[in-house]
Amino acid sequence: MDTRTEIAQIFHGTFIHSVSLDKLEVIKNGLMGVDTHGSIAFVEREVDVSKIQEVLAKLGVEGEEKGQFLLPGFIDTHTHAAQYPNAGTGMDLPLLQWLDEYTFPLESSFSMLSYAQKIYPIVVDQLLLNGTTTAVYFATIHLESSKYLAQVAFEKGQRAFVGKVNMDCNAPKSLIESVEESIQETESFVQYTLSLESNANKVDEHEKKGTRLVTPILTPRFAVSCTSKMLEAVGNLAKKYDDIPIQSHLSENREEIAFVQKLFPDIENYTKIYDVHGLLNDRSIMAHGIHLSESERALIKERNAGISHCPNSNFTILSGVCNVRQLLNDGIKVGLGTDMSGGSAKSILNAVQSASIASRVISMSSSNNETKKHLSLPELVYLATMGGAQLLNLENVIGNFQVGKEFDALLVDTSTSIDPAPFHAFEGIDDNDVLRIFEKFMFLGDERNLRAVYVKGRMKVHEYKNSGRCPVCNSENQIANL
Amino acid sequence: MDTRTEIAQIFHGTFIHSVSLDKLEVIKNGLMGVDTHGSIAFVEREVDVSKIQEVLAKLGVEGEEKGQFLLPGFIDTHTHAAQYPNAGTGMDLPLLQWLDEYTFPLESSFSMLSYAQKIYPIVVDQLLLNGTTTAVYFATIHLESSKYLAQVAFEKGQRAFVGKVNMDCNAPKSLIESVEESIQETESFVQYTLSLESNANKVDEHEKKGTRLVTPILTPRFAVSCTSKMLEAVGNLAKKYDDIPIQSHLSENREEIAFVQKLFPDIENYTKIYDVHGLLNDRSIMAHGIHLSESERALIKERNAGISHCPNSNFTILSGVCNVRQLLNDGIKVGLGTDMSGGSAKSILNAVQSASIASRVISMSSSNNETKKHLSLPELVYLATMGGAQLLNLENVIGNFQVGKEFDALLVDTSTSIDPAPFHAFEGIDDNDVLRIFEKFMFLGDERNLRAVYVKGRMKVHEYKNSGRCPVCNSENQIANL
Ligand SMILES: [Zn+2]
Ligand SMILES: [Zn+2]
Repeated sequence: MDTRTEIAQIFHGTFIHSVSLDKLEVIKNGLMGVDTHGSIAFVEREVDVSKIQEVLAKLGVEGEEKGQFLLPGFIDTHTHAAQYPNAGTGMDLPLLQWLDEYTFPLESSFSMLSYAQKIYPIVVDQLLLNGTTTAVYFATIHLESSKYLAQVAFEKGQRAFVGKVNMDCNAPKSLIESVEESIQETESFVQYTLSLESNANKVDEHEKKGTRLVTPILTPRFAVSCTSKMLEAVGNLAKKYDDIPIQSHLSENREEIAFVQKLFPDIENYTKIYDVHGLLNDRSIMAHGIHLSESERALIKERNAGISHCPNSNFTILSGVCNVRQLLNDGIKVGLGTDMSGGSAKSILNAVQSASIASRVISMSSSNNETKKHLSLPELVYLATMGGAQLLNLENVIGNFQVGKEFDALLVDTSTSIDPAPFHAFEGIDDNDVLRIFEKFMFLGDERNLRAVYVKGRMKVHEYKNSGRCPVCNSENQIANL
Repeated sequence: MDTRTEIAQIFHGTFIHSVSLDKLEVIKNGLMGVDTHGSIAFVEREVDVSKIQEVLAKLGVEGEEKGQFLLPGFIDTHTHAAQYPNAGTGMDLPLLQWLDEYTFPLESSFSMLSYAQKIYPIVVDQLLLNGTTTAVYFATIHLESSKYLAQVAFEKGQRAFVGKVNMDCNAPKSLIESVEESIQETESFVQYTLSLESNANKVDEHEKKGTRLVTPILTPRFAVSCTSKMLEAVGNLAKKYDDIPIQSHLSENREEIAFVQKLFPDIENYTKIYDVHGLLNDRSIMAHGIHLSESERALIKERNAGISHCPNSNFTILSGVCNVRQLLNDGIKVGLGTDMSGGSAKSILNAVQSASIASRVISMSSSNNETKKHLSLPELVYLATMGGAQLLNLENVIGNFQVGKEFDALLVDTSTSIDPAPFHAFEGIDDNDVLRIFEKFMFLGDERNLRAVYVKGRMKVHEYKNSGRCPVCNSENQIANL
C-alpha cells in the first residue's frame, strides 16, 4: 500500500511548537502531511521551494497567505462549562462566598436539560473558536445535563474530558446528592460517555481511528463539598475505571484550606485527603495548588499527579498567586486552565497572559534565586500545549508537531486583512522575525487571529479561502505561509 | 435665540458614568442632547417612552438597537506613540535594559519624518478605535516627527496632549540633544501645537468652540536621561508656559531609583528632583510612582501633582505593583495609562483589567486594612474616565455626562450581532441587569464592542445604521438602547 495515498492534507509554511519546557522550534519552509486518520505523517524542515511548488501543483492548490503560521492546539486543563454565563461577572468575592452567591445558583439551573441545551453548545463552540482543541470540563452534578455536554463536545469534534460533579455537603440542597445516587449516576455517566464513539451514527473515518475524542473524568468537586464517604466512593470508582482520569480542586485559598482542615481534622493536610481516599495518582488533575506546603508538593510529585494552573481565576476570586516555577522545579506536571467563571476569560491566550503576570508578580517579590525567573515565552507556550498534554497523559498523542501525533492545531493569521485587528505587525520591523510576530500574537492576539482550528486533523472552525479538498472528510487542504 | 435649534444630536437609552470615586450612575430611559459645539445640553432620566417617541419622530429616526449603552470616553494619561511597533514584544527585560535594547533603537527611527508618517496615523486611529478619546502622548526628541503627531491627532479629532521629549544624557548619541537645542525645539513645538487650532484650514464649528483639542505638554523623559541643567531649563519653560501641562516618569523600578539617587546625590529623593527643578506642580502627570516613600507621596499631594498608573507596563517590564489604594487614600490624583510599549496593550480596557489584577495582588499580600480592599468596578471606571480628567485638570470638561461638559463618549454594543464576540450576554440571566453586562464589557470586551466613538460630539469611529443627520457636521444622530 502506498502511504502517499493516505495523506489527506498538506501544510506548507511556518510551524511553531514546543520541543522542551524552555525551547520553541520554529520550522520555516516546512511541509507537514496529515493522514486520513488525522495523524501527522511527516514534517519536513527548510524544504526546497520548487519541491513545495510541485506538491502544491499536484494538489491543485494555488496562492499563499502572508503572515500565517501553525501552532499546536491549546489545552484548557480546567474549566467549568456550566459557569460560562457568569464569566466576567461576580468578581468581588473570594471562593467560598463566591460559590454561594454566584456559582451554586447558576449550577442549580442545570437540573433542567433544557438549560444545558441552551448553554453548552455555545461553550463548546466558543472554546473551539478560541483555539481550545482539548478542554477538561467540570459539568454539574446533573446526569442528563452532563451527558449532554459530553455529547455536544463529541458532536462538535472537540477533544474533551467531561466530568459529572460529585457533591454531598456544604452546598445548597439543590446541589446535594446522596453518595449512592451520586456514584450510580457517575457510573451511568461514565458508561454513556465511553460508548459515545462506538454508538456514533455517522461512520467517520477520522473519529474512529486514533485516540478517544471524549473521555469521562471522575470529578469530586473538592474536599469542602464531599464527605469522606463520598471521596471514598469516588476513589473506588477510580480503582474500578483505572484508565479514566480524576479531577478536583486543591489548595485554592487560605479560608478554604482552613475549612478543609476543620472538616478532616485527622488528615494532616489537604493533599493527603485526596491521597488517602484513592484520588491522588498519575491520572489526577488538581486545579490551583497555590498554597501547597513542601511535603504536599513532594506527595504530588511522588504520586505523579499534576496541577492545573488557573492564574486568571486566582486573581479574580482573590485566591493567591501560584508559584509555578516552584512546581516545575519540583518536577510536578503543570498545565494551564481558564477555570471559568472563577476566571473571567474563556481563552487559553488569556491564561498564558495571566500566567505571565502571575509569574512576574512572584518574580518581583521573590528573594529566592530558584524561583526568581519569570516564565519565558517558550515556557508559557509549553504550559499551554505540551504541559497540558502531559497533565492528561497525552504527551505522546498531542501537544506538538512530532510525527505520529494527532494533528490538533491552530492556523494563526497575523496579516493585515483582519479589521479591527488585535495587534499590528509592521513592515521593516516585524517581517522576517517570526518570533516577534508570534510574541505579539501570544500577548495581544485573540480569536480573530485564528483562521482555522483542527482537532485530529479535522477543521472545526474556519473562514478560509484557498482550498483543495480532503479525500476523506471533504474539508479544505491548507497552506500556511509566513 | 431658541436653544432647541442648537441641539445637534439626541441620544436615547442607557447611559453609565461615574459620579464619584466609588459610585456609578446608571441612567435608564435617558435622553441626552448634545449641542452644535459638542457640549452636553441636557440629560433627562427615566424619560416617558411617549416623549422619546415624539423626539425621535421629530428627528425622523426609527428603530432601536438592543444591548447598547453610552459611556464616557476613555482617557489614556500616559502612552508612547513612537513605541507602538514594539507593543507586545520585548517583555524579558526590566526598564533600563529594556530602554537600551528595544526602545531607544526604535525611537531613533523617528529622526526621519517619513517614519513618523508611517506609524503615528496608525497609533491615533487605533487608540480612537479602542475608545481612547483623550490620549497623553510621549513622542520622541525629534521636532518634525513630534509636530506631525500633534497634527495627526488634531486632524483625526482626538483630544490629545503631545510632548516632544527632552533628553541629554544616558542614552545613545542619536537620542541626545544639547540643552539649548532641546529647549529651542521644545518652544518651537509648543508654538506649533498651540497654533494648530487657529491655523486649521477647514472652518469647523465643532473644533473652534469649547476647549482646545490638542495641547502641547512639556516632556522631560525622566531624571535618568536629563541632566540637572536640562531639568532646570524645562522647568523654566514650565514657568513661561504656565497653562500647559508637564509629564515625566517617577519611581518606576528599584534599579532606576538607585541610579537616579547616584545621578542626583544632593537631592533627598526622586520626587524632590522634579520639585526643585520646577517640574512638580498641579499640572504634572508623573507616570508610575510605584515605590514612593511616604514623604514623596506627601510632596506630590502638597503640589497637587498626580500619578498615571500603568499596571500592564509595571508587570511587563517587571517594575513592581503600585498600591493605588494608598495613593487614593493620600488624596493624590490618579489616572490610568497604557504606557505602550512598556505596557503591551493599547487599550484602556486592558489598563482597567490590569489595574484590577494589580490591586488584587496588593490586596492579597496586604496586612494593612487601609489598603486591603481591591479596586471595585466603579473605582476602576472612575480611574479610566474621571480620574484621568482630574489628572489633566479637565474634570469640568470631560470624564462623565454632567450637563455642560463636552461629549466625549463611547457607544458600547453588547448585542449578539458581533461575531466572533468577545463575550456573551444571556437571555434570562443578563437582561434587565445592565450592570452585569457592563461588568462583562469592562472585563472581557474590546473594540469590537464599540459601535461609535465621539470626541467633542463628533463621531470619530462608527459603523452605525439607524441615523438622522447632524445639522452642523452632517454626522449621524444616535440612539442607544438597552
Ligand atoms: Zn474550578
Ligand atoms: Zn512611559
